[in-house]
Amino acid sequence: MPPAGEFAYLDWLRKQTPSVPRVLVGPGDDCAVLDWSAGRPCLVTTDMLMDGTDFILAEAGPRRVGRKALAVSLSDIAAMAGRPVSAFAAVALPKSGGRELAEQLYHGLRELADAFNIALAGGDTNSWDGPLVVATTIVGEAVGRGPALRSGAKPGDWLLVTGPLGGSIRGKHLHFVPRVREALELHSLVELHAMIDISDGLAADVHHICAESHCGALLVAENIPVSDEAKSVTDGQSPLDHALSDGEDFELAFAVSPDDGRRLLRDQPIAGLELSHIGECIANGFWLENHGKRIQLEPRGWEHQLL
Amino acid sequence: MPPAGEFAYLDWLRKQTPSVPRVLVGPGDDCAVLDWSAGRPCLVTTDMLMDGTDFILAEAGPRRVGRKALAVSLSDIAAMAGRPVSAFAAVALPKSGGRELAEQLYHGLRELADAFNIALAGGDTNSWDGPLVVATTIVGEAVGRGPALRSGAKPGDWLLVTGPLGGSIRGKHLHFVPRVREALELHSLVELHAMIDISDGLAADVHHICAESHCGALLVAENIPVSDEAKSVTDGQSPLDHALSDGEDFELAFAVSPDDGRRLLRDQPIAGLELSHIGECIANGFWLENHGKRIQLEPRGWEHQLL
Repeated sequence: MPPAGEFAYLDWLRKQTPSVPRVLVGPGDDCAVLDWSAGRPCLVTTDMLMDGTDFILAEAGPRRVGRKALAVSLSDIAAMAGRPVSAFAAVALPKSGGRELAEQLYHGLRELADAFNIALAGGDTNSWDGPLVVATTIVGEAVGRGPALRSGAKPGDWLLVTGPLGGSIRGKHLHFVPRVREALELHSLVELHAMIDISDGLAADVHHICAESHCGALLVAENIPVSDEAKSVTDGQSPLDHALSDGEDFELAFAVSPDDGRRLLRDQPIAGLELSHIGECIANGFWLENHGKRIQLEPRGWEHQLL
Repeated sequence: MPPAGEFAYLDWLRKQTPSVPRVLVGPGDDCAVLDWSAGRPCLVTTDMLMDGTDFILAEAGPRRVGRKALAVSLSDIAAMAGRPVSAFAAVALPKSGGRELAEQLYHGLRELADAFNIALAGGDTNSWDGPLVVATTIVGEAVGRGPALRSGAKPGDWLLVTGPLGGSIRGKHLHFVPRVREALELHSLVELHAMIDISDGLAADVHHICAESHCGALLVAENIPVSDEAKSVTDGQSPLDHALSDGEDFELAFAVSPDDGRRLLRDQPIAGLELSHIGECIANGFWLENHGKRIQLEPRGWEHQLL
């Protein structure tokens, strides 16, 4: 059994950490130091995942939890069409089994950090009597024409999504690959007027774009790609409802000019995914067109309640 | 009573957020976007504080918890002699009282963010059945000759600290002002060979400098500034023991050349604090000189146990 102290764990962790050009100083000092001499805008995102809310540790296991924690933050970088540079993880480990848990969690974080060529350059390791909590921060940089914000959509823009939606809770939320590469490709191909990753649910997240862009949206039910998982749920909600309101799909929804939209639909230029044209931006209102009928759409989705 | 939803809280939070030149995009998008056109090295630190471990919410109240959470991370930026640029806070709020708690916590975070002219540019707001957890990240930049690392101390260097030590648990850990300004001043006055903030305890943290700098240290008991709080504890441990091993002092310990050390001691150039010469770096070993006797010093201090 390895030594139980935090410092012994940190020594182990440092030995695991590969050297990466952008990381001038990694774990083992008071801060990480990143080379930013190119002067590109710095993107920062932070997320917190808690046992029982965002994952069930006893079912998923620590490795998949670590992987998901990094994936969720990488997805935010993808939503800006940014390039991730470095990752950080702060953890509160349950006292029992903490060292083994810490190592497995780390391997899960590393799996995805390695896949995207970024370093885990720092963090904070704690233990307590409570359940596992993982907070990840990713620092990235804007590339090309700058970050894809939520705020640039215009009436007339086409709305597209990068993949099938709904039912992520059945497994995808633990093993999805954040759309970082796809977002960078899209960013180089077209002018992304607005983009978001679907974490709260399609309707809620498109509504976020509308709120920031001061426009409305009309979604077309038959064009919304519904995942096989959403189709096979038998809980009374329709597959379309799941596609509209389930959280944690981590696909991208984005707004482009109709010309760019048509070109993307025709060429399907991103290897490994099929783009769908789910609707368009309009001046006002938030609507779903279903079998020729237009109904008001609720921006439903996941929302924490602060009572 | 304000609405209980996360999104209503986020709207409230955005209205509180002042605009700051370095923050190109603040709360309300997938990432914050920071202006980094000057290209200075980017410093990143992250910390997680948990109710029952790092604070007692019922005693301290959410405002002081928010303040401490930011102070702890700012202290890491100070330890690099860096300039803080932007702060981020991810929280897991207990379900009951979450909205009021969130607002008070935010006010505590803001108190210190405002004091150091940085923005709270993003975060993640969650609620759950567990106790309050706050994870802060601060992004800063290296200035002048670059960051003050732990690794540049040399045998012969003088070791100095910025203030009295021990007994922080009696209150200082909740209301200390991180030594950001003092560190920047020191950095402009002398060449800081190595620096650390005292969070684990003086002996443990000087030992961290020694480990990174591949040297030893000799501390002189009578020169270690002992706080009034440490002097008045009646738990069987001596005041000196408290000064050596209590955590969360958040003073700075640093190594400079003997010439610079002498100059700092003579001039005491930093307003509001008295620098103490607590010992020096040596080739090997870790010693305390007490009344003419040299005893081996244990690098004791706070350490999380991962069983």
